[in-house]
Amino acid sequence: MTYCVASMMNAGIVFASDSRTNAGVDNIATFRKMKTFERQGDRVIVLLNSGNLAVTQATLNHLDLAIRRETGPNLMSVGSMYEVAELVGAALRSVRDHDTPFLIQSNVDASANFIVGGQIFGEPQRLFLVYSEGNFIEATAETPYFQIGEVKYGKPIIDRVITAETSLNDAIKCVLVSFDSTMRSNLSVGLPVDLLSYNRDCLRIGHTWRFDEHDSYMTSLRKSWGEGVRQAFAELPNPDWS
Amino acid sequence: MTYCVASMMNAGIVFASDSRTNAGVDNIATFRKMKTFERQGDRVIVLLNSGNLAVTQATLNHLDLAIRRETGPNLMSVGSMYEVAELVGAALRSVRDHDTPFLIQSNVDASANFIVGGQIFGEPQRLFLVYSEGNFIEATAETPYFQIGEVKYGKPIIDRVITAETSLNDAIKCVLVSFDSTMRSNLSVGLPVDLLSYNRDCLRIGHTWRFDEHDSYMTSLRKSWGEGVRQAFAELPNPDWS
Repeated sequence: MTYCVASMMNAGIVFASDSRTNAGVDNIATFRKMKTFERQGDRVIVLLNSGNLAVTQATLNHLDLAIRRETGPNLMSVGSMYEVAELVGAALRSVRDHDTPFLIQSNVDASANFIVGGQIFGEPQRLFLVYSEGNFIEATAETPYFQIGEVKYGKPIIDRVITAETSLNDAIKCVLVSFDSTMRSNLSVGLPVDLLSYNRDCLRIGHTWRFDEHDSYMTSLRKSWGEGVRQAFAELPNPDWS
Repeated sequence: MTYCVASMMNAGIVFASDSRTNAGVDNIATFRKMKTFERQGDRVIVLLNSGNLAVTQATLNHLDLAIRRETGPNLMSVGSMYEVAELVGAALRSVRDHDTPFLIQSNVDASANFIVGGQIFGEPQRLFLVYSEGNFIEATAETPYFQIGEVKYGKPIIDRVITAETSLNDAIKCVLVSFDSTMRSNLSVGLPVDLLSYNRDCLRIGHTWRFDEHDSYMTSLRKSWGEGVRQAFAELPNPDWS
């Protein structure tokens, strides 16, 4: 599996993805699942992906080729994030149409999902979730985040913390805690974690980080969170029957 | 869905189950998913169930009828928890053999799981997970807990807290926090929560509680946990790039 999350606050958008892929426990590898497209002052587009790796890589290659060939609308030419999401969905549909008949013969799941976010000049920042069928939904103030892949373990902390008013730094910390919880309970999600922050209206990538197992900040964050949770647990009221 | 968890420590076993069932969001009801069999000084057996409600109820009725008829081995007659798990698995298989052909016609999922735990005189306390196929596994010191149903949201806190040395009170608190996290992130799991504690070697039920939305302890626990988590979050180290 995979775990990716993106959260859009008033201050900007935080994107994060793990990098573990597996086709069975004896076939585990590291692949970056975050891809960016940037033309400073004009657009920042970030794609996170989960699902069948051949399908997601082929989809990204379709999108790349369209940019290089310049023969039609592509991620660097369209004027809205809505059209970006449409292009991603269309590329995903094209790949799945092409490959699914062969994958079905081996009972291979051809599904894949994309989180698509960023900003294009003239528009506010926007965030979309592209389903495996190629259709998509957009984040709103009430639901400011999307997750794909192994989403459940890390959802409670996001539900507790993130709102539209959350700062980028707090959102980054929350997302890293969400990854920590997921990685503790599920072997199929693993470090390194790629993280990218986008400051609203900047039209260029804010910061990017890759947290591996030796990263001192990730280590201190995990330690602090573990101690904090144990402390919160120790302070829970005792039941009155004891 | 459902969420049930049972955790076996040196001090005893804690069992908990929610009570929400749904067949679509417009068909939600409350059913107790914990059933106990007790003969003080001889045995305490606790069953938690998840899955197709007709299947689990039929399985429990088979087990009940066997006790009343006394024509063969039953939950109140066998001499080991292993045989108890066998009886539950056999009853589940019988029900599924009988009903599955009809359920398949309507694409209804006939799967169901049971957690089976307790103690019978002459044996140590034991805990089993009975799969939908009727076979089962037993908890060990390395993996002292089982969950069934909507298990992922509430798993990280259990992974962090519970070991064989955990006290019954701490395990109760941990299980309730696990339910709180699950209920916040998933509508298909809901109060009231049934909880039962068994003190090792007592051979009678320790305490039982039903926590509904008006329960003052559950309310204060949820409040304290929410504040503690926010506090832990506030104390996380800031990233050095900020």
